[in-house]
Amino acid sequence: MIYPKAILFDTFGTIVDWRSSLIDELQAFGISRALVANWVSLVDAWRAAYAPSMDRVRKDELPWMRLDDLHRLTLDRLVAEFDVKGLSEEDLDHLNRGWHRLRPWPDSVGGLTRLKRNFIIAPLSNGNVSLLVNLAKYAGLPWDMVFASDLFHHFKPDRETYLGACEFLNLRPEEVMLCAAHNSDLRMARSLGLQTAFIARPTEYGHHQVRDIHADDAWDVVATSVEDLADQLGAGTVV
Amino acid sequence: MIYPKAILFDTFGTIVDWRSSLIDELQAFGISRALVANWVSLVDAWRAAYAPSMDRVRKDELPWMRLDDLHRLTLDRLVAEFDVKGLSEEDLDHLNRGWHRLRPWPDSVGGLTRLKRNFIIAPLSNGNVSLLVNLAKYAGLPWDMVFASDLFHHFKPDRETYLGACEFLNLRPEEVMLCAAHNSDLRMARSLGLQTAFIARPTEYGHHQVRDIHADDAWDVVATSVEDLADQLGAGTVV
Repeated sequence: MIYPKAILFDTFGTIVDWRSSLIDELQAFGISRALVANWVSLVDAWRAAYAPSMDRVRKDELPWMRLDDLHRLTLDRLVAEFDVKGLSEEDLDHLNRGWHRLRPWPDSVGGLTRLKRNFIIAPLSNGNVSLLVNLAKYAGLPWDMVFASDLFHHFKPDRETYLGACEFLNLRPEEVMLCAAHNSDLRMARSLGLQTAFIARPTEYGHHQVRDIHADDAWDVVATSVEDLADQLGAGTVV
Repeated sequence: MIYPKAILFDTFGTIVDWRSSLIDELQAFGISRALVANWVSLVDAWRAAYAPSMDRVRKDELPWMRLDDLHRLTLDRLVAEFDVKGLSEEDLDHLNRGWHRLRPWPDSVGGLTRLKRNFIIAPLSNGNVSLLVNLAKYAGLPWDMVFASDLFHHFKPDRETYLGACEFLNLRPEEVMLCAAHNSDLRMARSLGLQTAFIARPTEYGHHQVRDIHADDAWDVVATSVEDLADQLGAGTVV
């Protein structure tokens, strides 16, 4: 294996635990407002609408918009479906920005901090710049650069995102590694010539998760955590 | 004064000392190859070609290209003019990448580290992404995001750069401050509604510098260093 010069990270699920963070946030909000709702199902429905909403942009059923705005379209629909009443515009904006306040997995910050010493590290995410920058500050993610979908006006798995990040870094695809908890993301990256690293996140979708429990191809690296990825890539400890 | 949410920094001259860094690099290279040349004048001529070369892109005399490529066009011309002989393609590429290895001013890293606690901090530079990312790693600049000219396909002082960065951050211009050592950069930023901070860098162009010695307008902040800017914006010390 040739060492990459840059490692790009899928972010939602791979670096941050969106599900438990949003559930905690919505449950706390519900308690503070004495609002009863099935917040867990609402969060799962919110995420389930993620790929279909990006597909609507891809098919030109919706104009280009930030992921923040797609999240908001979905949230507006879900609060009606889940019969959550009495939310102001300010409340909805606050809840939608819950995606800017997600907890990192316990190994993410330590592993990234080690990798940053030897490699360029950056998210390659469907989030927009402002979401990802706010999230990095909230979670303490020490990125060297932020590759967001609004830089490309494309969402993953469109090839423009993977190849666009390589182009901005002035690196060949084989000099760049994508790290993701999702086999499909890695498949597209490999088809374009990038190196690949899988990190299992078997509770990303909760304890009954069935997808992406294991690497389903011989990725260049298969790791259990970002710390493990740093170990396997020979990144030292931070002194 | 209303506190900004983000501070954008001009980079060459404001954050890093390009002139003394490049002179040291070229002089050391000359000694290692036993090449005699007026390296100081070559560096000054290299920088003097900076604005005119971007103007050629602006006027469509040249296609869009990275600042790295504009630097290289100029370097190829100057090695001939300064009669520097025997450089290989590898040598020229190495020297051109000297712009990726510039020293920060002594107050830059400390000041930025303090400001990062309270504000989003990012360069807003005519450099390209790869240049600015490599430079940040070399100099230890703790950016939250990197706003490079190749994100916009425009160079400063085109309005698309200042307003494009605000748009990516999802902030209004008045929520964003530009910090620069160059009055002209601040004039454009102010005309577009951004807040402004001047930092004097009276030796950027050497000890006989005549321009930008002083703030020539009532900028929102006038500071002597990035540390002083952090003081004036109430950023605490780093523990």
